[in-house]
Amino acid sequence: MKRNVLIIGAGGVAHVVAHKCAQNNALLGDIHIASRTLAKCHAIIESVHDKGSLHMPGLLQAHQLDAMDIEATKFLIRATRCQIVINVGSPFVNMSVLQACIETGAAYMDTAIHEDPAKVCETPPWYANYEWKRLDACKRAGVTAILGIGFDPGVVNAYGRYAMDTYFDQVDSIDIIDVNAGSHGRYFATNFDPETNFREFTSTVWSWENGAWKANAMFERKKEWDLPVTGKSTTYLTGHDELHSMSRNLGVPDIRFWMGFGEHYINVFTVLKNLGLLSEHPVRTARGQEIVPLEVVKAVLPDPASLAPGYTGKTCIGDLVKGTKDGKPQEVLIYNICDHEEAYKEVGSQAISYTAGVPAVAAAMLIADGTWDMGGMVNVEELDPAPLISLMNRMGLVTRARHGTEDYVVEPQMAIAEQVSCDKVASMG
Amino acid sequence: MKRNVLIIGAGGVAHVVAHKCAQNNALLGDIHIASRTLAKCHAIIESVHDKGSLHMPGLLQAHQLDAMDIEATKFLIRATRCQIVINVGSPFVNMSVLQACIETGAAYMDTAIHEDPAKVCETPPWYANYEWKRLDACKRAGVTAILGIGFDPGVVNAYGRYAMDTYFDQVDSIDIIDVNAGSHGRYFATNFDPETNFREFTSTVWSWENGAWKANAMFERKKEWDLPVTGKSTTYLTGHDELHSMSRNLGVPDIRFWMGFGEHYINVFTVLKNLGLLSEHPVRTARGQEIVPLEVVKAVLPDPASLAPGYTGKTCIGDLVKGTKDGKPQEVLIYNICDHEEAYKEVGSQAISYTAGVPAVAAAMLIADGTWDMGGMVNVEELDPAPLISLMNRMGLVTRARHGTEDYVVEPQMAIAEQVSCDKVASMG
Repeated sequence: MKRNVLIIGAGGVAHVVAHKCAQNNALLGDIHIASRTLAKCHAIIESVHDKGSLHMPGLLQAHQLDAMDIEATKFLIRATRCQIVINVGSPFVNMSVLQACIETGAAYMDTAIHEDPAKVCETPPWYANYEWKRLDACKRAGVTAILGIGFDPGVVNAYGRYAMDTYFDQVDSIDIIDVNAGSHGRYFATNFDPETNFREFTSTVWSWENGAWKANAMFERKKEWDLPVTGKSTTYLTGHDELHSMSRNLGVPDIRFWMGFGEHYINVFTVLKNLGLLSEHPVRTARGQEIVPLEVVKAVLPDPASLAPGYTGKTCIGDLVKGTKDGKPQEVLIYNICDHEEAYKEVGSQAISYTAGVPAVAAAMLIADGTWDMGGMVNVEELDPAPLISLMNRMGLVTRARHGTEDYVVEPQMAIAEQVSCDKVASMG
Repeated sequence: MKRNVLIIGAGGVAHVVAHKCAQNNALLGDIHIASRTLAKCHAIIESVHDKGSLHMPGLLQAHQLDAMDIEATKFLIRATRCQIVINVGSPFVNMSVLQACIETGAAYMDTAIHEDPAKVCETPPWYANYEWKRLDACKRAGVTAILGIGFDPGVVNAYGRYAMDTYFDQVDSIDIIDVNAGSHGRYFATNFDPETNFREFTSTVWSWENGAWKANAMFERKKEWDLPVTGKSTTYLTGHDELHSMSRNLGVPDIRFWMGFGEHYINVFTVLKNLGLLSEHPVRTARGQEIVPLEVVKAVLPDPASLAPGYTGKTCIGDLVKGTKDGKPQEVLIYNICDHEEAYKEVGSQAISYTAGVPAVAAAMLIADGTWDMGGMVNVEELDPAPLISLMNRMGLVTRARHGTEDYVVEPQMAIAEQVSCDKVASMG
């Protein structure tokens, strides 16, 4: 049993995480939010109070923190008696926050892979470059660290594992599909931090095919899907975190990630990339200022959090899994539909932030009650997916399966012990 | 009679100006080049020597100068005994260089209107905001100042005046058309300083119609022309310096400027503008750096001078003038065709820089021999256009007229005295 949560970061996902922790503070205890910019923490706390998200009276506190500073982070973890750290700050702080957790014994979670600001798209598997180097350290310290527990990576890893366990004797391929059919009504905006967003697409696209890494260029491979609710959707093969752990942990020959892009996004992205404006390497202006072009692009784009009020439409994210069961070909799509307007009504966020933040809080609850508190570093597909899916069904993210002619809500069978934490969740209805 | 030339600036146009001054140093005397960046001056001097452009042995010297510093500029003018200043630096330095000329008695020239870095597209007529405020000061000091003597503004002003004097009793409209049908083979580049280039297009498009200023948006009015050599060309109504003096000096009801744009240029421009990346107002990055987005765009784009080696194709710039002569409708296109490859072969520059730089040197020669040394501030249409056209015909920019079914080289009739300076020009052939 662990209690008290420290949320690192105060962006769009942190906003959702704070609301969801508040809704479940009976189990999670105190909630602390830390960011470089204290005002952003206060804004989130104000929103939590405005929406009445706290399930019961409890502590909700803001802290100024540079999460690159391991000692300061350790001090804050100890001072707040937080046993669970949800890191939803920039991907540059993962390794320092993880180190602070290892040294304090707090459980660690993040929703995206660690990145070095100066490097884009390193050698696969990406986790081996940073996080997995701390596998032994986590084991020795008995520290639970769940890597990449947003929606993708995160829930889609659990979906892959769940499909394998439930529907197949053998899985041949997992195609992870992420489509946002919503509209924010702005000329152009990214749905999460533009810097993180663009860095995903500016270099080699790695996919796992025939049991090996295959390199493609961005927007080189296009695929149309007919998805539930969002309908016909155009996607492109994209590099993504989860491929780098699922390829090692699941033994499936083909694992690919497909992200939906409209022509307008591709046009803007192509112009910016070809001009060199998405570069992470500094340039020198005529006046002699050194500046990273990507940081300027980020500065002129809308704050993703500001998109939420007018956002309409839905997202569809899931795993299309193919293989065999009892010698016969089998295909199932496990997916979630999330509505931008409903997410905004509930917590004041758009669906992209919502789908990333809810799973992290579900994981925190599964650590709090011991279900997922494994005392080591894991990627999500290494954990039993059943309690996560079951818990999320009650937290606003319902898992469905399209299987042959059927399309139904997935309600995993669980051992009695696992059901305890799920029963503790305040009902969404 | 004036001698010795100080060139301010060391960009693409300065490069051409230096070469052309060198070709005519028998008349012009010493040549000095001053810029913030000394290395750029040295590179130009090296190019002049490499091409053997000096007509006779003579002084060619580089100087480090911040042209915003009036005292430093005055000191340099006096120290070098320059009587002619050709300002082809950034449009932000016009007023300080002009002031230095007024205080030292040197003749002043530029090729583009003064701009305040913090303002885009001010109230028309633009010259009244800055330059024309010094009309009296120039008159009192007896200082010759020729504003905007590149190709456009500059030669197109002279073309308008020449057409009125030669072909018409009454002129109803002057449409200035600037089409670059060349290709630089890069993804995207501007043909002169990107900052200056984009600033032309980011705000209200002012045109002179029915004897009044009319406001349009950029890319709002499109027109196709069938031009000599470059053929069918798509242009858009654009705001441009020369409209702001020709409207006052020529008494013509309609004066418009049309610039050729390809779809690719418009797409890139539209993306950058809509994202806010062409803004001259500083933004603050997440790391706290204050930066002007437009300066970053400039920093990532190719240096216009670097385009010259691979540039192919031609430019067509001219005035389509309509009116009446002896009671009959009359129409004439006065124009120049400039070839990128030929310009590169002669002076190592592309045609855009070449067409801007040659007229300024022609004007310097007409000041040197007294023809245009008027002892006051003028826009080009206030000067006799004949000696300019005649001199340029011998300097690499030939003026042609398309008049009814005829298309011929324009050789203006001149008084004997005016022919003297033209005879001094080293033949191009």
